[in-house]
Amino acid sequence: MNSPTKPRLVDIADVAGVSTATVSRVLNGKDGVSEQVRHDVLAALDMLGYERPAALSPKPHGLVGVVVPELTNPIFAEFATRILASLSNHGYTPLLCSQSPGGATEDECIALLVDRGVRGIVFVSGLHADTTASHEHYTALTNMGIVVTFVNGFAPEVDASCFASDDMAAINQSMNHLRQLGHTRVALLVGPRRFVPVQRKIAAFCASIADHVSSPDAHVYESLFTIEGGHNAALRAIADGHTALVCASDMMALGAVRGARSLGLSVPGDVSVMGYDDCSLAVFFDPALTTVRQPVGSIVSLAVSTLTHEIEGVPGPREEFLFRPEVVVRQSTGAAPGQTAA
Amino acid sequence: MNSPTKPRLVDIADVAGVSTATVSRVLNGKDGVSEQVRHDVLAALDMLGYERPAALSPKPHGLVGVVVPELTNPIFAEFATRILASLSNHGYTPLLCSQSPGGATEDECIALLVDRGVRGIVFVSGLHADTTASHEHYTALTNMGIVVTFVNGFAPEVDASCFASDDMAAINQSMNHLRQLGHTRVALLVGPRRFVPVQRKIAAFCASIADHVSSPDAHVYESLFTIEGGHNAALRAIADGHTALVCASDMMALGAVRGARSLGLSVPGDVSVMGYDDCSLAVFFDPALTTVRQPVGSIVSLAVSTLTHEIEGVPGPREEFLFRPEVVVRQSTGAAPGQTAA
Repeated sequence: MNSPTKPRLVDIADVAGVSTATVSRVLNGKDGVSEQVRHDVLAALDMLGYERPAALSPKPHGLVGVVVPELTNPIFAEFATRILASLSNHGYTPLLCSQSPGGATEDECIALLVDRGVRGIVFVSGLHADTTASHEHYTALTNMGIVVTFVNGFAPEVDASCFASDDMAAINQSMNHLRQLGHTRVALLVGPRRFVPVQRKIAAFCASIADHVSSPDAHVYESLFTIEGGHNAALRAIADGHTALVCASDMMALGAVRGARSLGLSVPGDVSVMGYDDCSLAVFFDPALTTVRQPVGSIVSLAVSTLTHEIEGVPGPREEFLFRPEVVVRQSTGAAPGQTAA
Repeated sequence: MNSPTKPRLVDIADVAGVSTATVSRVLNGKDGVSEQVRHDVLAALDMLGYERPAALSPKPHGLVGVVVPELTNPIFAEFATRILASLSNHGYTPLLCSQSPGGATEDECIALLVDRGVRGIVFVSGLHADTTASHEHYTALTNMGIVVTFVNGFAPEVDASCFASDDMAAINQSMNHLRQLGHTRVALLVGPRRFVPVQRKIAAFCASIADHVSSPDAHVYESLFTIEGGHNAALRAIADGHTALVCASDMMALGAVRGARSLGLSVPGDVSVMGYDDCSLAVFFDPALTTVRQPVGSIVSLAVSTLTHEIEGVPGPREEFLFRPEVVVRQSTGAAPGQTAA
């Protein structure tokens, strides 16, 4: 990139929309200039590709990376949006890296962020949540002094803070809701078992039905965390006689509703469907989705403040923080067929 | 950041999971190493914060910035996802910058991207779409040799390529659909008038009804591009006796449906609602949204290939490319009250 070393005051003044005298005052760190004008002049300097005088460089806190698995699932877009805003509020410059189909992998995101000199990285539902993946790349980061923060997932061997929604509590709450509606044949529809949240949901689900079912795991339907995954798993679960489907994401729940309807069944008349996430559009779906709300705001708030403290040298907690989700009852769950709700 | 200048082969071998001899072969550019192993070794080098030997540096094409106004509106997440994947496929490393409430502004995104040395920036629905905003910062970029590409919006004074959905065609198609359903009292619900797409939609809408309405502009309801904006505009439009609401985004349409229902009206029984965007979840809304599909894939494909060609020195077109959208008929539109559909 062209980066002339000697700023021309007149160019900067032109871009900033101020006089050259004002530019000069800002560059020399003089008083009598409003914060807004100072900001405009520095922005003009940046824009024109000049280096800021070292004494003026207002990058006190530096860059922090944010890595999410995708953006088209609204829950990840919501996590990303809140993390970006929170980092900005803490005075850090966020760099968002989204993995994408045919695009960047987590490793490539990390290489990019390290190359840019980030001081920390927040990983949302990354390889730290995959029990079969190597986590050595995280340790390589912490060995370099880069602070690592995990959201949803757990890799206890990494020197990182962990924040997650409580998957077991989410399942227990979902099961309670469905029991109150009279459902006794409940299936769990999940993504791949190698993920920590899936394993926790399965454990809670099996414990919840173990009293009255001989092989609880037979009621777990493994698929993909997508609309199509939910659709396919729902067809199998319904064929096996289940009247209620607890899904591991709102996207899977959308697919489960579609799957049930493709069989000529009504939701919730014949089959009840519960989601998980409570993405901001869940209330607008058909039917409005009964789901379990991840406390995104609370998770992000604590994760980012912990991360920024760690960057500033304050040791962070190393036990996992679990956040309590809550059931949001809407229209996709109802009394079990032949029952009236309690 | 710590960046030791002299790589230790043993550390690299450790992270890459290969022998030091293999690391040595890769670093010296020797043959007999698979592409995967070569990639792993270079990734390990990156991870450990070492500079790659210049001859090996596989950053042939460099960084390209992507700036979107937000991510929680699914259409922007979809544009971002497709642009990231397309840039990666072209061999560029994308840097995504999302503006966010309480977070970064477009100027801050630009400063960040320029600071990172991007060779081009794609702006989706940015200030280039705002007719009241200064566009000088774009010219400052092109003067620095940074290629600028605009998606949805138009700033002809900037030396940049422009790609957009055809807003006028979208309105004409929407009006045709509603006329076939017998609607004669149609309102247009839009975001702020300072945006190019809004101005184009208003122009097409007014031209479309000018034949049989004395003051077409009285049927335009200006609000915000949000669910709440759609809700509020719908209340006003329905109070004025309109039976069909053409909305400038799917999010506004969701709000319009909610607004109509808050008055005890049914959609589409009493009021028809059309969206614009066809975000990937529109089919799952209640009611499934009749909307106008932006050809996101086609726009992104041409925008990114033009941008990469420009970076490589091939001059790009300077006229605006308009892409034809199409009406997707679902459940939110129906015959005008008292009519049967044609």
